Amino acid sequence: MKYDLINDDLINICKTASVPELEELCEEIRRFLVEKVSKTGGHLASNLGVVELSVCLMRVFDSPRDRIIYDVGHQSYVHKILTGRAAGFDTLRQYKGLSGFPKSRESVHDAYDTGHSSTSVSAAYGMAVARDISGEDHNVVAVIGDGSFTNGVVFEALNNIGANQTKVITILNDNGMSISRNVGALSKYLNKVRSSQKYDQAKHSVKSALGNVPVLGGPLSRGLRTSKQKIKYSVIGEEGHLIEDLGIKYFGPVDGYDIKNLTEILQAAAEYSGPTLIHVLTTKGKGYEWSEKYPRKFHGIGPFDTQTGETSSSSSVSYSKVFGETLTALATRNDKIVAIAAAMGTATGLMPFYEAHEERYFDVGIAEEHAVVFAAGLAKSGYTPVVAIYSTFLQRSFDYLIQDIALQKLHVIFAVDRAGLVGADGETHHGMFDISYFSMIPGMTVLAPADGYQLSEMLEFAVGMEGPVAIRYPRGSCEGKHLRLKRFRGSNSVISDGRDVTILAVGAMLDECILAAEKLRASGIDAGVTNVAVVKPIDSSWADLDTKLVVTVEDNVLRGGFGEGFTAANTDASYDIINIGIPDRFIEHGDIPSLRRECGLDAESIYERTIRYFTGK
Amino acid sequence: MKYDLINDDLINICKTASVPELEELCEEIRRFLVEKVSKTGGHLASNLGVVELSVCLMRVFDSPRDRIIYDVGHQSYVHKILTGRAAGFDTLRQYKGLSGFPKSRESVHDAYDTGHSSTSVSAAYGMAVARDISGEDHNVVAVIGDGSFTNGVVFEALNNIGANQTKVITILNDNGMSISRNVGALSKYLNKVRSSQKYDQAKHSVKSALGNVPVLGGPLSRGLRTSKQKIKYSVIGEEGHLIEDLGIKYFGPVDGYDIKNLTEILQAAAEYSGPTLIHVLTTKGKGYEWSEKYPRKFHGIGPFDTQTGETSSSSSVSYSKVFGETLTALATRNDKIVAIAAAMGTATGLMPFYEAHEERYFDVGIAEEHAVVFAAGLAKSGYTPVVAIYSTFLQRSFDYLIQDIALQKLHVIFAVDRAGLVGADGETHHGMFDISYFSMIPGMTVLAPADGYQLSEMLEFAVGMEGPVAIRYPRGSCEGKHLRLKRFRGSNSVISDGRDVTILAVGAMLDECILAAEKLRASGIDAGVTNVAVVKPIDSSWADLDTKLVVTVEDNVLRGGFGEGFTAANTDASYDIINIGIPDRFIEHGDIPSLRRECGLDAESIYERTIRYFTGK
Repeated sequence: MKYDLINDDLINICKTASVPELEELCEEIRRFLVEKVSKTGGHLASNLGVVELSVCLMRVFDSPRDRIIYDVGHQSYVHKILTGRAAGFDTLRQYKGLSGFPKSRESVHDAYDTGHSSTSVSAAYGMAVARDISGEDHNVVAVIGDGSFTNGVVFEALNNIGANQTKVITILNDNGMSISRNVGALSKYLNKVRSSQKYDQAKHSVKSALGNVPVLGGPLSRGLRTSKQKIKYSVIGEEGHLIEDLGIKYFGPVDGYDIKNLTEILQAAAEYSGPTLIHVLTTKGKGYEWSEKYPRKFHGIGPFDTQTGETSSSSSVSYSKVFGETLTALATRNDKIVAIAAAMGTATGLMPFYEAHEERYFDVGIAEEHAVVFAAGLAKSGYTPVVAIYSTFLQRSFDYLIQDIALQKLHVIFAVDRAGLVGADGETHHGMFDISYFSMIPGMTVLAPADGYQLSEMLEFAVGMEGPVAIRYPRGSCEGKHLRLKRFRGSNSVISDGRDVTILAVGAMLDECILAAEKLRASGIDAGVTNVAVVKPIDSSWADLDTKLVVTVEDNVLRGGFGEGFTAANTDASYDIINIGIPDRFIEHGDIPSLRRECGLDAESIYERTIRYFTGK
Repeated sequence: MKYDLINDDLINICKTASVPELEELCEEIRRFLVEKVSKTGGHLASNLGVVELSVCLMRVFDSPRDRIIYDVGHQSYVHKILTGRAAGFDTLRQYKGLSGFPKSRESVHDAYDTGHSSTSVSAAYGMAVARDISGEDHNVVAVIGDGSFTNGVVFEALNNIGANQTKVITILNDNGMSISRNVGALSKYLNKVRSSQKYDQAKHSVKSALGNVPVLGGPLSRGLRTSKQKIKYSVIGEEGHLIEDLGIKYFGPVDGYDIKNLTEILQAAAEYSGPTLIHVLTTKGKGYEWSEKYPRKFHGIGPFDTQTGETSSSSSVSYSKVFGETLTALATRNDKIVAIAAAMGTATGLMPFYEAHEERYFDVGIAEEHAVVFAAGLAKSGYTPVVAIYSTFLQRSFDYLIQDIALQKLHVIFAVDRAGLVGADGETHHGMFDISYFSMIPGMTVLAPADGYQLSEMLEFAVGMEGPVAIRYPRGSCEGKHLRLKRFRGSNSVISDGRDVTILAVGAMLDECILAAEKLRASGIDAGVTNVAVVKPIDSSWADLDTKLVVTVEDNVLRGGFGEGFTAANTDASYDIINIGIPDRFIEHGDIPSLRRECGLDAESIYERTIRYFTGK
């Protein structure tokens, strides 16, 4: 090994080393990534794709003076290695360990925290405007994938940047896929650009092209003139038009693995006085046999064997899988059911649906807002759309849930996947607000299954209902440890009665609550558990519960959650109430047991909180 | 008058009358609109601009079989007149009267309810997909203004439509302004198209142009061939490129007042087999002297004199005005303050700021998502952004409030205008969720002033705080009837003590609560009132209130609101609690007193609810 990734000053090496030396550095980073991620799990393929790009960004730009923002941020591992965090990769995504996303608290080189897609260009514009009104002159760079590029907020940002001619450098990291295959007209357009231009041509025509670049109007031409005449950049053909129509200088496409050319083009953008977009062509999973072959599998992956690319197979069935298979079966019997995904068709379990009912399957891309309004249009025409989106990403659709779905009382089913604590992805990805944001919307029904069996019944039940329905369920195994619940018919199930305490266990919190009740009974407390499958509306029969204490347990923030709603609805009740939920702060990444303990949501904490009530301690 | 707008079958007239007859109809509709809106108030300018367009849509399309969706919907008055609702204009926007927005419950001709901008294209796509998978063949038309067109969700929809070649007809109603002057690169681009093409040229070149239209790829050409060869449409030059790059056939620009040409171009789109965009040029306020002269004033206007265009001037000062003037003054002393508007700079009171500090004023267009991330970028660079957005529109930014602002603990101030019930705009515009959606976000401070004086102090206080702060205040007059509150120093003010009942009055509900307390005292109940200026965090000293009953009053939904949070935080307290707020359903339009009564938020209802507790009735 030529480089010591943990102890060498890699930023300096990026700036001073020769191209062959950097190529070697990139190879070593790749080996390091494969080795480390094979043990911890993580986002591998996207990071392997941007090794040279990350190195070249460090080579050309002066971080942290120049700001580099990685959109979404799961492709920031190389950046983390280059900026002194290689030693942390043994604890990557583990409790109290290195985050899998950019975090300003980890390093001054993480200019902006990301996690959800498509914010980098807007944030970069904000930083660039701050720079300009402060009279400073550093660069601001947004690195964004072609999948993220299709989200509307990017268009909103470019629309501002182009109009104001603010110097923001947008790097379009085009690997032709986001997490799954990319969708949309823009993707087709980029593909056309990609295929119509020969890299070689671009490479050899690096030259001053001042006279022959089509530009929108005055400001751009002026910008070009004021930048150095000797600027060298790649050719731009007719295909740059879409970007240039928005007033943004287009450079590319350029080979993302040609360090020399990439350095030159980044240098050109750095010297150019107006906004630029550099179209960089990369390959997801680049340089490792298995991830190049299966980039989707290696997007986010658990521990794997570096030789075979095999992950240790888990025998447990996930909620997502049950959801997808149940919906596929339901759609076979009911031709009004349509499924909508937002770039996460595979992850939400919808591939069987796609295979069985392709004409009724719609992946709209990373466009959660559009997904919901599109569903409203379908519902308005008599279809029953089932929209499968992660709890945390569906936050983007909040206004549309109110305005387009609830206000028109449309029968749309939301399959709210990854609800509750999600584990290793951490604070940007926990689905900890959905009970609150759904419950405040008039006319919503909010359901939460305790296991896969109940999810399957719930989904069938929801199809037969009217109005909007959200079904929220967690990431991972759906094999509840309790006995199978009664057939779901739209109400909650009393698992056991308790004269001292009744624990109302929301959805998948049931197992922890059953364990807590067992411990309570062992301590002489008559504890019962009820499975709260219907989170909204709140069951009015609970007003008359014959118990001394009710403990509500949910893996959602307390504010606006089930517990608060329950408490406010039962201020006249004879029993006391304790609400247990996620406290009013953000929760970092880690394994679920550790996170539940931290939030007081594990059986032991529920037990302790309850026993304290009875013992008065 | 040739036509009886109330009793004639206007749809049939649109279909069968000659062009000169329709021109006369349009003139009569204009006179009707000016006369009616001068009495009720409403959105005038945008409706005057689309009279001919609305008539031509009825002429060419077969509503309700063909679906016509008006984006935002405040320009649907002409459509309402044409579809049998002219008689309703005497009660326009009044309690229990005709809505100022499309409502399916009013007419089968309102294909989709709108209110917030930029949803029409996504909804139309949903309906078009439903049509296609059902094997039907009607048309789906979205009518969208150039202001709404800059919102990202439209791009997300077009990205899908273009890729899938679904037949959706998008009418771009380009009047060169949304509510205020339009912003953005797209607007510049459209302006370039507008000025580079002569209407006359377009008009005379109506011809079959099958051979010379630049199209993206195979599907489009095929689409064109399968439609009738004799299709006539306007020329398209290089300027159509941006739309055509997305795979959508561009027609235009066409004069929005030339009924003959407009009919032909709509007919061409109807016969074309793929997705189209028709670029129609209109003038906001067209055909009425005062609205043509002052289109911004006549966008949404109260009752006015038709001869002079003068509105009856109100002497009261609005919250928005106090906000704008205070911020302008603060920014004079503090050069780190920047102001951000989302196409509503005038309405949110920011014009003085713009005039005094233009370099620190940013109108991002109808792009509430981008506005918030842009603010995060500025805050991350040491600025103090103040984002002024209506409560109901800020729902679009929910995810960014969490991910970009709160997670990074950024000091951004949200001036949440039009919080609570807004009156005539109705159910799509009430700001009735903001306390809930802000309160669930960790680290947020939520403030609510009771009057303009307090707003001004609060704003200054918020600038000196850390982390994110939301200040929510209602539409209209800020002249509270109570005596001036104590200087705001970050805590709540006890107006009067009450041993029997303490009313916690959130923000501007203070006046109603003071009145209620007076009535209660007159009935022998010792009632006190506290001004809740700090909605979050919830004041811990309230746990020890020496009172029998606490009544919380807020103009926000109960679920997740202040009252529920208060109740859950004080389950151990010795007093009983009643939460008063907006019930769990949508509230229609009307005057504020009527709406408050309906929601139980007026003094009389608060009094009755409270006295019932004491009398046991």
